[in-house]
Amino acid sequence: MTDLMIKNARPNGGPAADILIRAGRIAEMGAGLVAPGVPVEDAGGRIAIPGLIDAHTHLDKSLLGHPWYRNEVGPRLLDKIDNERRVKRDLGLDPHVQSMRQSVLSLSHGTTHIRSHVDVDTDQGVRAVEGVLATREKLAGLIDIEIVAFPQSGLMRRPGTLSLMDEAMAMGADLVGGLDPCGIDQDPKGHLDAIFGLAQKHGKPIDIHLHEPGELGAFSMEMIFERTAALGMQGRVAVSHAFCLGAPDWQRTQALIDRLAELDIRILTTAPASRDVPAVKRLDAAGVKVGAGNDGFRDTWGPYGTGDMLERAMFVGMRNNFRRDDEVERALAVCTTGGAEVMDIAGHGLAAGCAGDVVLVEGETPADAVSRHAARPLVVKGGRVVARDGRALVEAP
Amino acid sequence: MTDLMIKNARPNGGPAADILIRAGRIAEMGAGLVAPGVPVEDAGGRIAIPGLIDAHTHLDKSLLGHPWYRNEVGPRLLDKIDNERRVKRDLGLDPHVQSMRQSVLSLSHGTTHIRSHVDVDTDQGVRAVEGVLATREKLAGLIDIEIVAFPQSGLMRRPGTLSLMDEAMAMGADLVGGLDPCGIDQDPKGHLDAIFGLAQKHGKPIDIHLHEPGELGAFSMEMIFERTAALGMQGRVAVSHAFCLGAPDWQRTQALIDRLAELDIRILTTAPASRDVPAVKRLDAAGVKVGAGNDGFRDTWGPYGTGDMLERAMFVGMRNNFRRDDEVERALAVCTTGGAEVMDIAGHGLAAGCAGDVVLVEGETPADAVSRHAARPLVVKGGRVVARDGRALVEAP
Repeated sequence: MTDLMIKNARPNGGPAADILIRAGRIAEMGAGLVAPGVPVEDAGGRIAIPGLIDAHTHLDKSLLGHPWYRNEVGPRLLDKIDNERRVKRDLGLDPHVQSMRQSVLSLSHGTTHIRSHVDVDTDQGVRAVEGVLATREKLAGLIDIEIVAFPQSGLMRRPGTLSLMDEAMAMGADLVGGLDPCGIDQDPKGHLDAIFGLAQKHGKPIDIHLHEPGELGAFSMEMIFERTAALGMQGRVAVSHAFCLGAPDWQRTQALIDRLAELDIRILTTAPASRDVPAVKRLDAAGVKVGAGNDGFRDTWGPYGTGDMLERAMFVGMRNNFRRDDEVERALAVCTTGGAEVMDIAGHGLAAGCAGDVVLVEGETPADAVSRHAARPLVVKGGRVVARDGRALVEAP
Repeated sequence: MTDLMIKNARPNGGPAADILIRAGRIAEMGAGLVAPGVPVEDAGGRIAIPGLIDAHTHLDKSLLGHPWYRNEVGPRLLDKIDNERRVKRDLGLDPHVQSMRQSVLSLSHGTTHIRSHVDVDTDQGVRAVEGVLATREKLAGLIDIEIVAFPQSGLMRRPGTLSLMDEAMAMGADLVGGLDPCGIDQDPKGHLDAIFGLAQKHGKPIDIHLHEPGELGAFSMEMIFERTAALGMQGRVAVSHAFCLGAPDWQRTQALIDRLAELDIRILTTAPASRDVPAVKRLDAAGVKVGAGNDGFRDTWGPYGTGDMLERAMFVGMRNNFRRDDEVERALAVCTTGGAEVMDIAGHGLAAGCAGDVVLVEGETPADAVSRHAARPLVVKGGRVVARDGRALVEAP
């Protein structure tokens, strides 16, 4: 069923309209539409938004379905990385099962697209990529999943990782990942040459984790700029986290932001409360595309989170001190169309010709919906109802 | 009914125990308690925590029960202050009704004690204090409410406010409030002399809002230190927000924190994601008492929030980058016993002799409960069941 009529919705909080989806795409929007034979859902005047996009998460890290994980991990990034490899072994986590659980949970929250970094390392090889690829296949049509081959444990510091990354790309990963070329790999030239080389070899884009703060992050970012320009990869590179863009030196960060815009390098943020973060308004002003993600949640890294991108829109708003309704609406857009811009998903929105990815939310206004982030009454993917009243209509293992 | 047996709870996530409350206080805790004739609640193995304490909120500001307020307010603190006075007039907000609504909502979340700042200004005089005093009386035994006479619109800049504050104290306000002696009043000496004088006159403690960042806040704080010491008000002063303690200059802020400890000046935080904040671990290390509050929520100041102090514990944890279970448990304690320390509430905790204020929460562990902040199955105040399954057993107007 990819034809659907959603009656009496309020697209993005505007006036009531019917949304007619035919063959999985929005055919028409307006008052009093008629389409004999097409199944009907009554939105009851609720606000409709485009599908939520979780553009930065880790489907293979979730501990969903397992007993509470007691976190006693050390404070360094490397502590968390090493701990996670151990826990994965000890618990015998199945990346397919875990990614199914998280994807189905995301879908119940109205997420229609996911970009997931998936660990590739010399302990588990490409096993996690296999698992998430299987999840993508199983959930085809219900949720779109993009896979980043991600060297979580480091690339140069753990020889053998690069050829595993190459293997992951050959298997069907969509992007080449990277991670703190200085902070983790301590070989920025080696790391960046390797991942840009791999991206060139497979003709795929790059999404690199950059936690490095201040000048260290700025340094790595400038090396990313250099390679993006030299290889003609404008519009093919994203930087996740980019904490260095939240550093206090305004002039310094503005120069970085301006260069991001020139090279069409995109930014993905999870808007963490405890770190410096790129300011959405500054990125907007410079014309840098910005999306958001939940990152991992309830995993060995930390206890918080629900996988809900409407709650994430609230976090984006809170972190950016967005209080005005127009500001909160922008935070929400970062979590819908913003992710689509970063991920080059064409036709994501509520307009004729766009994909039939429509989510009903509870609230008087979009800002109210963000603030409440109550269970979604209805989630539609390509014209198909995939979740209702906060529950997915597909089973997770 | 102030006798109650709570069977099969896990106090603070520890081993299962029964909690016997007699005459409103915990008489005994342990396995297999027997108390013929005492009503029984079965906790079903759920975690029990002491009552949550919202030690910094604004009961008179809530817009609960009104249509969504579209926020188009300017960026300065003064914009928000002036806007709020206007909106209060335009909507004809009744401080009693609004404070009843927020208090009953808080109670449904397991909050057993509130410290509320209540606006006193030359527009509305002491009307808001009257309204919240009436709420306190009406909800006596269900939730404890402490009232701070709060010069939200400024004290020195609006002549006549001080005598209204004096009137509010005479009517029964429990503390003298203050606000940004430099940033708002632009007369730090005048402001601080006035509020310390008023506190001395009425023999009451002080709780002062200090949003001023960096050196400006440090300057005001040092003037607070001077007066606290000179007037012998050690243990009688709290500073709310105290953003200046989150400033990057570690040595400078450590000197302030050490002096807070010496003078037993307490800190209240709402752990906002967008501002520098005092780090809980640094306050703990110095021995400074710290509690937390929700601040206003869903009001003219901002759209976020639910009034739930278990969710606030999550925000405290997120802002402080608390990931380990012991850290998250500390964030939770800030929202229970931390508030009690700041507010000098004796006997707040789960132990024989403590008040019979007990909240059941959902989750495998305390950190899980914070992360989920699901509806509270049971809230007990002084041995009396006041909320069940997320719903208060008392009506709000």
